[in-house]
Amino acid sequence: MTEIASQHAFDRAITLQPLPANRFSGQIDDSYQNMVGPFGGMTAATLLNAALQHPERIGEPVSLTVNFAGPAAPGEFEIEALPLRTNRSTQHWMLLQRQQGEVVTSATAFFATRRETWSEQVLPCPAAPPAEEFAAMPRTGRGWFKHYDFRYVSGLFDPTGELPCSTESLLWARDNPPRPLDFASLTAIGDIFAPRIFNRRQRFTPAGTVSMTHYFHAHQADLERAGSGFLLGQAGVTRFHNNYADQIAHLWAPDGTLLLTTTQVAYYKE
Amino acid sequence: MTEIASQHAFDRAITLQPLPANRFSGQIDDSYQNMVGPFGGMTAATLLNAALQHPERIGEPVSLTVNFAGPAAPGEFEIEALPLRTNRSTQHWMLLQRQQGEVVTSATAFFATRRETWSEQVLPCPAAPPAEEFAAMPRTGRGWFKHYDFRYVSGLFDPTGELPCSTESLLWARDNPPRPLDFASLTAIGDIFAPRIFNRRQRFTPAGTVSMTHYFHAHQADLERAGSGFLLGQAGVTRFHNNYADQIAHLWAPDGTLLLTTTQVAYYKE
Repeated sequence: MTEIASQHAFDRAITLQPLPANRFSGQIDDSYQNMVGPFGGMTAATLLNAALQHPERIGEPVSLTVNFAGPAAPGEFEIEALPLRTNRSTQHWMLLQRQQGEVVTSATAFFATRRETWSEQVLPCPAAPPAEEFAAMPRTGRGWFKHYDFRYVSGLFDPTGELPCSTESLLWARDNPPRPLDFASLTAIGDIFAPRIFNRRQRFTPAGTVSMTHYFHAHQADLERAGSGFLLGQAGVTRFHNNYADQIAHLWAPDGTLLLTTTQVAYYKE
Repeated sequence: MTEIASQHAFDRAITLQPLPANRFSGQIDDSYQNMVGPFGGMTAATLLNAALQHPERIGEPVSLTVNFAGPAAPGEFEIEALPLRTNRSTQHWMLLQRQQGEVVTSATAFFATRRETWSEQVLPCPAAPPAEEFAAMPRTGRGWFKHYDFRYVSGLFDPTGELPCSTESLLWARDNPPRPLDFASLTAIGDIFAPRIFNRRQRFTPAGTVSMTHYFHAHQADLERAGSGFLLGQAGVTRFHNNYADQIAHLWAPDGTLLLTTTQVAYYKE
């Protein structure tokens, strides 16, 4: 990690101190605050970081599921990172974030050492004009917004009702200021998409992710090639039904490589 | 549960005996065997069943993630079903399946009591001729095949190489003999799709799911309306990369209602 990267707000926010017995401590400040508690992508990145920093970790993350059980409050937390099972080239993790002894977030992760095999990207990168042709979204509003540079190609949430309703969004995104992509920051960027219910109705409603699953297609070389460039993200939904809706999104590197497939289920009111 | 349903092989296979301290015991026989261990959909249904049968359970399943950490052997197993956190109308679960003290499967689940809200299905049901117009797949081969009636519309795995390669499959499926749909059987049917690597190359390779996530759009009334009819399933993939590929699939009821969105990441060799 370079000195500049270590001073990025993202790196400060995911910082963990190792404790005995598979535990880590960390601190939630208001730098990445969202509506209720911190930005979910930051929580997910912090949990993944516990496995990444664990001395027994092998390989790179392939999948991560994070369940948001209750709002995490500003202040101290502990993460228990338990390697449930380690095989020759694969490893299964259970990750629990607790505050005052109560579980606020649970997660499971799967890590593996990949070998070179026949490979193929099936989902092509959508066509989009370069990020530089779009205006950056103003970085007011919730705390976490200011740490990202969003350039919407289409499907912007617009509660004024001037833009049409949509269920899909296409946007460029990167850390602000730019920061070389790694598994932790890709994890966070995987959660930048507004709940689809916002865009579908172009009005605000209480909403929040309850469970999110990332599949990391990227390996280390893909991340290094992506560098600190904009990623192209596309999000959609399959069904809104009685308080819960799913969401699927993909993130591509500037060169069109698919880095992440992510799904989530989000609560919405009314 | 009717007497007929209680005698179905599916109901025998997911049977659990409650033990003290959030534990359940069960038995794996060879009825739903797959390549290595039992059919993953059966394992997922059995884990979900532990939460469904837990005396503290509230609501209906909204999401389920199952991680296949190691092959489950025929014989006894224990499931620990821990309600990690129960809120007013939501509940987060951790589920661990062990054999001889070792974790073979881990899972998390989210249950909720839904209220009626504005709702909309975004993903339409694909057009397909009725199931009755297609021949049932012969029920030879792996043990679990005989418990399902599959009618392929397109994208059949054909190692003879006569059919073209494809990454998508569209098929009708139901329990064999027919059985009224419930959350456990929907969970299992969510895992019936062959690893996409098979269809893409039309040749066999060692492959297996490592993590699977279901989002249940269906509530109880949707399941009852689906009854014991054929469900229409469609599966695809976004990227094959160095031993791992994702997979996304959807299941619709006979009337076109989207019941399940499911994703998984699967290992493949070479």
